[in-house]
Amino acid sequence: MIKIGIIGVGTVGESVAQILEANRDIITARAGKEIVVKKGVVRNLSKPRNINIPLTTDADEVLDDPEIDIVVELMGGVEEPYRVVQKALQNGKAVVTANKALLAYHRYELQETAGDIPFEFEASVAGGIPIIKSLREGLSANHIESIKGIINGTANYILTKMMNEGVDFAPVLKEAQELGYAEADPTFDIGGFDAAHKLLILASIAYGIDAKPEDILIEGIEQITQDDISFAKEFGYTIKLLGIAKKVGECVELRVHPALVPQSEMIAKVDGVMNGISVIGDKVGETMYYGPGAGGNATASAVISDIIAIARGGKASPMLGFKRALESGLKLLNRDEIVSKYYLRLEVADKPGVLSAVSKVMGEQNISIETMLQKPGKDGKATLLLATHICKESAMQEAINKLQTIESVKERPVMIRMES
Amino acid sequence: MIKIGIIGVGTVGESVAQILEANRDIITARAGKEIVVKKGVVRNLSKPRNINIPLTTDADEVLDDPEIDIVVELMGGVEEPYRVVQKALQNGKAVVTANKALLAYHRYELQETAGDIPFEFEASVAGGIPIIKSLREGLSANHIESIKGIINGTANYILTKMMNEGVDFAPVLKEAQELGYAEADPTFDIGGFDAAHKLLILASIAYGIDAKPEDILIEGIEQITQDDISFAKEFGYTIKLLGIAKKVGECVELRVHPALVPQSEMIAKVDGVMNGISVIGDKVGETMYYGPGAGGNATASAVISDIIAIARGGKASPMLGFKRALESGLKLLNRDEIVSKYYLRLEVADKPGVLSAVSKVMGEQNISIETMLQKPGKDGKATLLLATHICKESAMQEAINKLQTIESVKERPVMIRMES
Ligand SMILES: NC(=O)c1ccc[n+]([C@@H]2O[C@H](COP(=O)([O-])OP(=O)(O)OC[C@H]3O[C@@H](n4cnc5c(N)ncnc54)[C@H](OP(=O)(O)O)[C@@H]3O)[C@@H](O)[C@H]2O)c1
Ligand SMILES: NC(=O)c1ccc[n+]([C@@H]2O[C@H](COP(=O)([O-])OP(=O)(O)OC[C@H]3O[C@@H](n4cnc5c(N)ncnc54)[C@H](OP(=O)(O)O)[C@@H]3O)[C@@H](O)[C@H]2O)c1
Repeated sequence: MIKIGIIGVGTVGESVAQILEANRDIITARAGKEIVVKKGVVRNLSKPRNINIPLTTDADEVLDDPEIDIVVELMGGVEEPYRVVQKALQNGKAVVTANKALLAYHRYELQETAGDIPFEFEASVAGGIPIIKSLREGLSANHIESIKGIINGTANYILTKMMNEGVDFAPVLKEAQELGYAEADPTFDIGGFDAAHKLLILASIAYGIDAKPEDILIEGIEQITQDDISFAKEFGYTIKLLGIAKKVGECVELRVHPALVPQSEMIAKVDGVMNGISVIGDKVGETMYYGPGAGGNATASAVISDIIAIARGGKASPMLGFKRALESGLKLLNRDEIVSKYYLRLEVADKPGVLSAVSKVMGEQNISIETMLQKPGKDGKATLLLATHICKESAMQEAINKLQTIESVKERPVMIRMES
Repeated sequence: MIKIGIIGVGTVGESVAQILEANRDIITARAGKEIVVKKGVVRNLSKPRNINIPLTTDADEVLDDPEIDIVVELMGGVEEPYRVVQKALQNGKAVVTANKALLAYHRYELQETAGDIPFEFEASVAGGIPIIKSLREGLSANHIESIKGIINGTANYILTKMMNEGVDFAPVLKEAQELGYAEADPTFDIGGFDAAHKLLILASIAYGIDAKPEDILIEGIEQITQDDISFAKEFGYTIKLLGIAKKVGECVELRVHPALVPQSEMIAKVDGVMNGISVIGDKVGETMYYGPGAGGNATASAVISDIIAIARGGKASPMLGFKRALESGLKLLNRDEIVSKYYLRLEVADKPGVLSAVSKVMGEQNISIETMLQKPGKDGKATLLLATHICKESAMQEAINKLQTIESVKERPVMIRMES
């Protein structure tokens, strides 16, 4: 018998306790032994809950209980769970967590403390999709060339609605909030920060790279309009918020931003709240993993798969993992060095000379334009949409700064990177 | 150090040896020890090969070598590899195989012999996609409700071409043969037999069910025409060769056949030679796995992931596995009991009374028609396309037999099942 303590019995924790009960037959068979929840930890003991496990508000009752084999951290946050997980590992308990924010900041320190004690986190990226096991084990014969993920369901829901129904960002966000797909404060999801946390976890597994969210390029989807979407459609693209990790020489490029993705790519077909992660291995080529990125049951399914693996006597999986960088010497690429194709949208005065002023700025940065469209607007304004050939991020940023100073350019140009 | 012997050094075996060499750095790091190919076994020693390992024609040199820890069976066939794998396991050697035909017939006997010795076969289904690990480990908290797979790249290539380019079956098959995507004798792939082998492996893992290819419903894609494809397109479907395993009460339904799949489903978007498998778990919902189903490197990537797992000291994975049926009492559903929606194509004489004769037969079998389309043909003939509501396979088969006896019906009606 394996005894677990669940610290945090909210959406995911409650589902974990319920599924352990509901699917006891197969879970026991697969784990090779019974898994029992000895105690749960919450803040508020008087909240009604749909589970039948002993509760406490004192995490130490779990952390210091010598009978508990596995601590399941599902409380959310960063510093408090950090303390909890450190203590659990120091007390020799295996740990399972779904907490991507915790891992985005403290994954290497925790892995260091864990040593040979199992420390698993399948649920922390893309909820129910077994992407971490797939990267670590399924693709273990490969050098990973790139990972591209739609790893935030809220942002994907909003972009999909905008694409399919021609609705603007603000009303779709409002609807998503009413449906419970977006938080009251949606910044974390639509600003790309949640996706960045998950990307860092994937990049650690694939590249052993140590970076914090602050170190990487993160842009959100707030500025996307129907003009961008009709451009995308016209040229065979869709717009997705992507987390991208890519090996470039001896460096790894990490970035989260909306991107124009060719409609023919499998990842472009991941719609609504679903998540999808495309991984390119040097030998296997592209594989893609699709499924629900959140929700109590889907996330709990991943949490329990980790519990089962540990119960089966699994050893810690340092391979591809946090313990040390396997891809020796891979460094984070400076964001200025990123190369990409770019799409730009400029609101301009509909006057002669604008086009040539814009082209001049681009030329000065050595950026060549692949496609240019001008759409008439209201009140003597026009919208200029253009796609570039490949150039450096630094050149593009410089161009955007310069474009802004042209008198006929009314607002800071909106830029979306193009992936292909 | 782990020593392996490769029995069969053809397309896949050669790639295994090459990748072990090319990616030695990460493979050693992930396995925790060096993996060395001690010997390869082939039929013809004088064939030129792009590898540098000692070769023999005598499999016993590998099977009886006490230094060899893992036997990798990549020779193909059924009875000869059965002998080889049995002997390897009896000699206490771990076995890795990519041989789906072997497993379709002998998986339970081999698992029985293996006992606690690792016996792995990730590459046997969907080449480079880690579907077996995902089913066994990633989804271990779930009862599996259904598996739907595009697990034959040749058939999917042909159907995709027929859908996208409006070309008929015969010329597309010819082209696929010229490109090397189809064998000179393509029956095995386009007749659904290869997919059936793979489906049986997946169904064993999900349901512990013991069945042979002969026991299950298998239909190929040979009869599909552009009439079927335009019907599919008109009503928002695509046509795919699917392997389907589904839990229905205390039974499991297993079948391989072309199916009309709604274009909105993720699996409908798996095109060309690629494979994709959609799995529905009772808790996680739908997850989907996509990637290359064949090819030396992609398949070898999966073979090596098994070798690495064994080298890391992995124990055998009986959970979800072959050792015993975990889902107690699940039986194969009699194929007559399958229920589905059906699409029918009838070549008829363009005369009054045909429609009513057809409707009468359907009515007698209690099959209600959802959609009916008549398309004029040449020489006084017409094509009748219809889609039914849900009915039993036995009723549909009876209806087809009766329809054939109507005088104006020129050929045996073509039936395609509809999935949604
Ligand atoms: N929800 C998802 O779909 C999802 C998906 C993937 C990953 N995750 C991750 O899973 C974790 C849990 O998410 P959730 O949605 O289940 O959160 P939640 O519904 O807010 O539940 C949090 C639980 O932790 C308890 N808790 C919080 N702070 C505590 C403290 N200081 N001491 C004791 N108990 C405390 C809460 O107690 P009370 O009940 O008394 O308030 C509650 O039971 C987070 O890290 C999240 O990022 C969630
Ligand atoms: N190719 C793929 O993309 C793929 C994908 C998934 C699974 N698989 C499976 O992987 C296995 C191998 O496929 P493959 O494409 O690599 O086959 P292959 O190219 O035909 O290679 C077979 C190898 O086995 C050797 N061999 C055959 N019979 C032998 C015997 N009786 N004694 C000794 N050696 C023997 C052959 O020797 P010679 O070289 O001397 O002829 C050859 O080296 C099959 O089970 C197949 O179903 C293949």
